[in-house]
This record gives sequence, C-alpha cells and structure tokens, in this order.
Amino acid sequence: MPPHPLATTPLHFGPFPITPQIFHLTPLSFALVNLKPLLPGHVLICPRRVVPRLSQLSTAEISDLFLTVQRVSRMIERVYAADALNVAVQDGVAAGQSVPHVHAHVIPRRNGDMEGRGGGDRVYEMLEGEEGDVGAALREVERQRKREAEGNRAFAKPDAERLPRSLEEMEEEARALAKEMEREVD
Amino acid sequence: MPPHPLATTPLHFGPFPITPQIFHLTPLSFALVNLKPLLPGHVLICPRRVVPRLSQLSTAEISDLFLTVQRVSRMIERVYAADALNVAVQDGVAAGQSVPHVHAHVIPRRNGDMEGRGGGDRVYEMLEGEEGDVGAALREVERQRKREAEGNRAFAKPDAERLPRSLEEMEEEARALAKEMEREVD
Repeated sequence: MPPHPLATTPLHFGPFPITPQIFHLTPLSFALVNLKPLLPGHVLICPRRVVPRLSQLSTAEISDLFLTVQRVSRMIERVYAADALNVAVQDGVAAGQSVPHVHAHVIPRRNGDMEGRGGGDRVYEMLEGEEGDVGAALREVERQRKREAEGNRAFAKPDAERLPRSLEEMEEEARALAKEMEREVD
Repeated sequence: MPPHPLATTPLHFGPFPITPQIFHLTPLSFALVNLKPLLPGHVLICPRRVVPRLSQLSTAEISDLFLTVQRVSRMIERVYAADALNVAVQDGVAAGQSVPHVHAHVIPRRNGDMEGRGGGDRVYEMLEGEEGDVGAALREVERQRKREAEGNRAFAKPDAERLPRSLEEMEEEARALAKEMEREVD
C-alpha cells in the first residue's frame, strides 16, 4: 500500500489502527470517516493523543480539536448539502462512550431527514444505542481481520446485515473528503 | 436588585435577557443555568456574540467557548458527583436548535441515571424533543412576565406541570455554581 498522503505514522482511534480512514490531520487532531455512519457524512474528530476524557486535554488540544470540528463541519455541510449539524461528545462511559478516546461526532442534518426513521430525535437515540456503537463495529472488523489472517474462510464474511462498511469504501470516502478539505478556507 | 456579580451589562441568550442565570463569564463566552434541566446540573455555554451557527464564530470565540465547556464540565462533574458528561451542540434548526444562538449543552451523567426514564439514550431524545425545548420554555417565561407586568393576575400562574423553574431558583443555583467555579484551577 502506498504511504497515506496525510499520516506518515500510524494513527489510532482508541486501540484501533485507523490511518486509512483519516481525511484531515492537524498538529493535534485528526478527522476520520465512520465505520457505521448514522447518516451520510457522519464523521469523527479526535485529538491525536489517546485519552478518554475532555478534561484530560490541554488548552492547545481543546482549541485545536474544536477548530478542527468547525473546519470539518463547514466542509461536511457543503459536501452533503446539509441544513444543520449535530456535534456531540459522549464524554465517558456513562454518557454512551464506546471507544476510550475523546471523539466529537459531526452529523449533517437536513430538514425532515429522519422522517420514516422515527423523527429527528432518533439520531441521538441511535448515537447512544447499538446502531451508533463505534466500538462494537470496530471490534467486529478487528475480529474479521484476525479470522481472515488465520485463513478461517468460513467465518470471513459475517452476516451482511451486521457488516460495517468495507475498508475500501471508507478509504475512497476519506480520499474524497481530504480533497474537499483543501477547498476550505478560514 | 443589586448588580450581578459577574455581568455588568445585560447578556442575552438569543432574544432573551438571562443575566441572573449566568454563573460564569469569560472574555468571549458565558455559562448559564437551565430553565428546564433534563437532568440536575444540565447547563448551557454560549459565545457572548449572538449568532446561530458554529461556522460564524471566530477562531478566538471557538477556542474560548470550548475551553469554557471544559472548565465548566469539570466543575459540574465534581459538584453533581457525575461519572460522565454529554456535550452537545444543535448547530441549526434542522439539528433541533430552538434558540438562534450557539449553545453547548453540558449534561452530567451517572451510571444508570436514566433507568426508569427510558434508558440512557432518552437524554438525547429529550434534548431534541419538547422536554428539552429551551426556546419554548423561555418564551413561556417571557409571556408570564408580560402578563404579570400587565397585572393580569388570572394568567399569572400557568399550569404547575408546565411551569419552568422560578427565576429565584435559577439565581440561587447560579450563585452556588459561580462559587464552585472559583474552586476550579486549570
């Protein structure tokens, strides 16, 4: 695989290596596409340093993280032709955090986008429920990689219903979003 | 009324004057107690400048806003003996924003705090639904103030079920939290 255009050293989201999913990198933060987006364009922004709580971040890290949220949000709203955005941090396990690494969800919203899926508030319910469990989805991918590495073909393709997006699909989206980030000016 | 210990000029949350509810003030941001907290300790952090969208904030305003979120969060977690926090910005009407002024919700969470209220994800549902409609609650208070000013006593006390917290109760909480903020060190 050619070196990642943005990240020369491997980056992790909690314990998970996610370099190919990264579409934006700053001195202290990165933005990655989501394994199981709740809505199209649902992305995550993390500090580079792997710590679980907002309170553990330095002043510089907090500033960089949320300036990155702002810059990425503008791009996501433009590219996904959204009307608004939800920005949410589940800061700790009791708040629904599933990967022990600070991450801000950015979810583009359109008027009426959740009609037929239970109404607008359902996006939050999904975020905290099983559908938004980023940790479970990443663990499933890790298990799948391990099984494939072990050559256990019988288990290589889990139930398509439960299957998170493919690495190829995420890489493709990450490359497209990285290009779109270049168009953002402050 | 004596002058507010923090704010010498009136501060607004969208169109609403909320100076007595403020418990923390920085050069570019303020924190206020909530009219209808979803859980005890649910507070709001706003930029001083009244604009609806995160994208409209300057670099300095974004930094100050989220450093204030971090500082206030630490205090709220300590004072309310919480295990975690939800931090959420409804950035635009289609994302559930009810007052056209950027505001970050900070909601302290405890393990199992939403049991008997529909589970942990219900806090988000409430945030976007009627229970968390800060705008509707503030408009109700405005109507009440107007009716009282007009001397229409028959309408002065609306249905206790729907009544948001009293101004006195909020002022008392704001004074207590302002004291607690003094104990926070970076």
